Amino acid sequence: MTTAASAEAAVLDDLLSGIEARKPRALARAITLVERAGEQRRELIRRLYPRTGRARVVGITGPPGAGKSTLVDRLARHLREGGETVGILAVDPTSPYTGGALLGDRIRMQSLYLDPGTYIRSMATRGAMGGLARASHDAVDVLDAAGFDWILLETVGVGQDEVDVVRSVDTVLVVTVPGLGDDIQAIKAGLMEIADVFVINKADRDGVDRTVHDLEAMLGLAETQSAWRPPIVQTVATRNEGIDGVLAEIQHHRRHLRESGELAERRRQLLRLRVEAILKERVLAEADASLGLEAQIERGLAEHDDPYRVADRLYAGAVRSANGETVTAADEETA
Amino acid sequence: MTTAASAEAAVLDDLLSGIEARKPRALARAITLVERAGEQRRELIRRLYPRTGRARVVGITGPPGAGKSTLVDRLARHLREGGETVGILAVDPTSPYTGGALLGDRIRMQSLYLDPGTYIRSMATRGAMGGLARASHDAVDVLDAAGFDWILLETVGVGQDEVDVVRSVDTVLVVTVPGLGDDIQAIKAGLMEIADVFVINKADRDGVDRTVHDLEAMLGLAETQSAWRPPIVQTVATRNEGIDGVLAEIQHHRRHLRESGELAERRRQLLRLRVEAILKERVLAEADASLGLEAQIERGLAEHDDPYRVADRLYAGAVRSANGETVTAADEETA
Repeated sequence: MTTAASAEAAVLDDLLSGIEARKPRALARAITLVERAGEQRRELIRRLYPRTGRARVVGITGPPGAGKSTLVDRLARHLREGGETVGILAVDPTSPYTGGALLGDRIRMQSLYLDPGTYIRSMATRGAMGGLARASHDAVDVLDAAGFDWILLETVGVGQDEVDVVRSVDTVLVVTVPGLGDDIQAIKAGLMEIADVFVINKADRDGVDRTVHDLEAMLGLAETQSAWRPPIVQTVATRNEGIDGVLAEIQHHRRHLRESGELAERRRQLLRLRVEAILKERVLAEADASLGLEAQIERGLAEHDDPYRVADRLYAGAVRSANGETVTAADEETA
Repeated sequence: MTTAASAEAAVLDDLLSGIEARKPRALARAITLVERAGEQRRELIRRLYPRTGRARVVGITGPPGAGKSTLVDRLARHLREGGETVGILAVDPTSPYTGGALLGDRIRMQSLYLDPGTYIRSMATRGAMGGLARASHDAVDVLDAAGFDWILLETVGVGQDEVDVVRSVDTVLVVTVPGLGDDIQAIKAGLMEIADVFVINKADRDGVDRTVHDLEAMLGLAETQSAWRPPIVQTVATRNEGIDGVLAEIQHHRRHLRESGELAERRRQLLRLRVEAILKERVLAEADASLGLEAQIERGLAEHDDPYRVADRLYAGAVRSANGETVTAADEETA
């Protein structure tokens, strides 16, 4: 081992023992590492993966303004009161239009920061197109290996990217509020399909019966092969009302997952989602490293090449790069 | 050339002359072909690509219920009255919750079906995860090569997938309606950033001034390097009001694109988006063909392998498959 490599290995050992001790600085460094591409991230996940698979992972999604952050805050406090540890990952879309508001929500949670049994981290979507789901799954691994009993993964349910973030967690809460019009009901169609538990927050508002009715009607329309019918729970998170009911349904759903064998199926889906994301990231990185994505795009434009022809050149470049650099070792491993 | 290969080439020649003659059956067959993966699709695009780049491509997006289909219908009629030909691609999210409603919208357009200067085609999102943007860009090529003066690409602006569909068209119309609450404004943040022209449809409803005001406030907040500030046009598409104004702004935007050099930049972005999508699809297809994605996922689960390790095996398999099958020819081409 070279001196540089052994220094790097020592840094990683250090990081791993910091994660195991749930030191906030080590957790923060590890999550920053997985937000970036590169060999170190890969080595980190490889080392900590054997310790994963124990945490209960709950996704919380829904439209902006539904009160997700407050709900997450209250869920975390209830779990802490029962003596359990909680890691929170908040995936924020940092659009110039909404970034500020979400940052404000985070500040409300700051009292939790002082509790060593809780860890809170925001991850940004900006520039992470497609890589965000991969990074958030890696970050769940970090918190899982750190031994948190629960991981709450909060995201705004806007795009496919955000849906991929929460898909294949153990239990998905879809949070809504009374009084959203028909248009928004249609927008949420993509979320309806991934919901395990519906939470109607701000349930002291007018129109809550209508919202329950609409959700039940939508559930009635859905064709599903699952024996699980998502329950609907009402909360007023700001007043701490209904939080026990949400936790009870999460536990109830978890029992269903285990008894029906669906937990294993979700873990399978998650692994597939993660492997596909890594393959896609890798082919782009290797194509770029060998021939340069930008350079080939420019050449394609200059010669009016069709996209398949440009992609063929880049794919061949990625293959040549793999032949020269990594394929021999990988071949031996799988032979 | 083998008999089978020459028969296939004759079929393709036939298809290409049908496309050139804008025969509806040939257009329908070609678009069905690009919706699927495979070598034939690739060959079709390769052959017709030299004839593309002439059509004006307009994307129309916005929340369900904004009246996009009616607006598209009216735009198409106005263009036809001016003697121009129009191809319409409607990308429908076929969720069990919304599929029916959108199909109803399509039926209103049926009188256009009888006009040989118009071609209308729906493309479904179901099961096309990520491949939908690729397929719709290929379908635009088909209509472009067929010589349509205008291509209108309509999609519900819900997910990242849908945003990728309209991104990098020449001009993006974002359609909204008065009276949507604050929540939906936030949801549309992703759409705000891609809008070239805002259309407030159903502008005879209460609250139109408020909507104009809100949009202007959002535009004021946006940090942009572009010299183009998206105009806001009001329409009542069902009564055919304001359609000329929309067309005038599309022409105005097109002039800006050409004079500022941004048209070339959009074409560059589109090529890059398409090349990346093809590379991603290809690495998954080759990994699957060589080692079997499912089989490797099962092995990964059984051995509790981390996702990077599973991806390494599959990537090595894809590289071996490329080495055996395609890399020699591609190497010669680029050497």
